[in-house]
Amino acid sequence: MPRYKLTIEYDGGPFVGWQRQANGRSVQQAIEEALKRLTGEEQTLRGAGRTDAGVHARGQAAHFDLAREWTGDKLRDGLNAHLRPEPVAILKAEAVADGFDARYSALRRHYAYRVMTRRAPPMLERGRVWHVGHRLDAPAMHEAAQRLLGTHDFTTFRSTECQAKSPVRTLDVLDVLVRDDELVVEARARSFLHNQVRSLVGSLKLVGEGKWTADDLVSALEARDRTASGPVAPAEGLYLMQVDYP
Amino acid sequence: MPRYKLTIEYDGGPFVGWQRQANGRSVQQAIEEALKRLTGEEQTLRGAGRTDAGVHARGQAAHFDLAREWTGDKLRDGLNAHLRPEPVAILKAEAVADGFDARYSALRRHYAYRVMTRRAPPMLERGRVWHVGHRLDAPAMHEAAQRLLGTHDFTTFRSTECQAKSPVRTLDVLDVLVRDDELVVEARARSFLHNQVRSLVGSLKLVGEGKWTADDLVSALEARDRTASGPVAPAEGLYLMQVDYP
Repeated sequence: MPRYKLTIEYDGGPFVGWQRQANGRSVQQAIEEALKRLTGEEQTLRGAGRTDAGVHARGQAAHFDLAREWTGDKLRDGLNAHLRPEPVAILKAEAVADGFDARYSALRRHYAYRVMTRRAPPMLERGRVWHVGHRLDAPAMHEAAQRLLGTHDFTTFRSTECQAKSPVRTLDVLDVLVRDDELVVEARARSFLHNQVRSLVGSLKLVGEGKWTADDLVSALEARDRTASGPVAPAEGLYLMQVDYP
Repeated sequence: MPRYKLTIEYDGGPFVGWQRQANGRSVQQAIEEALKRLTGEEQTLRGAGRTDAGVHARGQAAHFDLAREWTGDKLRDGLNAHLRPEPVAILKAEAVADGFDARYSALRRHYAYRVMTRRAPPMLERGRVWHVGHRLDAPAMHEAAQRLLGTHDFTTFRSTECQAKSPVRTLDVLDVLVRDDELVVEARARSFLHNQVRSLVGSLKLVGEGKWTADDLVSALEARDRTASGPVAPAEGLYLMQVDYP
């Protein structure tokens, strides 16, 4: 059976997350249903990142098989037509080799987290940013973030519900940038733990407020204790931006 | 009576436009009602730009008088509290001189128009961009746009309902830029005619599609005939970005 890869954008707001769940509508379900309506085939999607409820994607990746051959363009346009009015868009659909696996073939995952630091609440970016409402010391946050790069036991920064076998991950990039009224945290790693980016952002915020030093951040990491983490940043500021493959 | 200036962001989607109208809720009305609830005073706002239904603002300006003295920060925060849950935010409130008039003191108005050129419909930018859905020749559009700069009779590019006495305006900037999947048209002038930016963008799109040459665009301007304009671009892509004062 031919295998296809999708690149997907969604507004995570109305969903229980990427993955099918009993308690509500997931992005995976929305696409699988559109696929069924388009092709008549009942297939299961496998996503690269299991984004949580409310988390957005600008470049989620997923794969599935179909009995019939499709051109990428027809698959993309057909799925987009059948997805309406759900806030999910297929940016690209393409045939891939049988061995391709959206989850296991991924080399790197890129996340971005948007924080709005101005006093007034966001209107045009409502539901798209975390509204902190005051200035943060971005250079201090960036400098502290660099000390988390590399391979570490990230137990402190993962959800107690995280199902990964190992808490060890290699963090390649954790940049803190400023764009107008926003601060953006960009994170890149082969893979992340559950709530890792949001836990890191919530802890970096404490650094940006002067409540934690860079040393405090490193101590939290070294504690390997979930209770040492700063508060988990809300889902609405987080975006799965891109997944890289060989 | 002390006079105050507001700098305002709004999502134009749910409103009939800036100005109070009999047929629905306006941004002006939303702010005037919040002002009444906050101060007990019934005052009329005067805005710098009468944005149409669906047009957004990142930097609308308006002024009004109050019997009582307020600090800018208290006025801003109080108005934002009373505006909830309307998609309108006061970014800044400040005391200004008696002679200040948001409309007549304005030196320059800056608009931006966002066009999404990718095939897949926007999800995270839904209601925030015009989804054209195919590539446009941005350099050709930019080059053609430069020929509209300066002082001209813009009858072709104004609504038949435009109430301005003169159709002559001086266009200082009309840039066409590309940002990822988007094309942004930035326009700056002391003042604009009704529907001028949207008519210009709709006409520039024809240039971007190769249906019009730069000469065709100039001929349309020179015709001084509303029927010579390209289609008016939809409201949802337009933003009043900034208003400059002395």
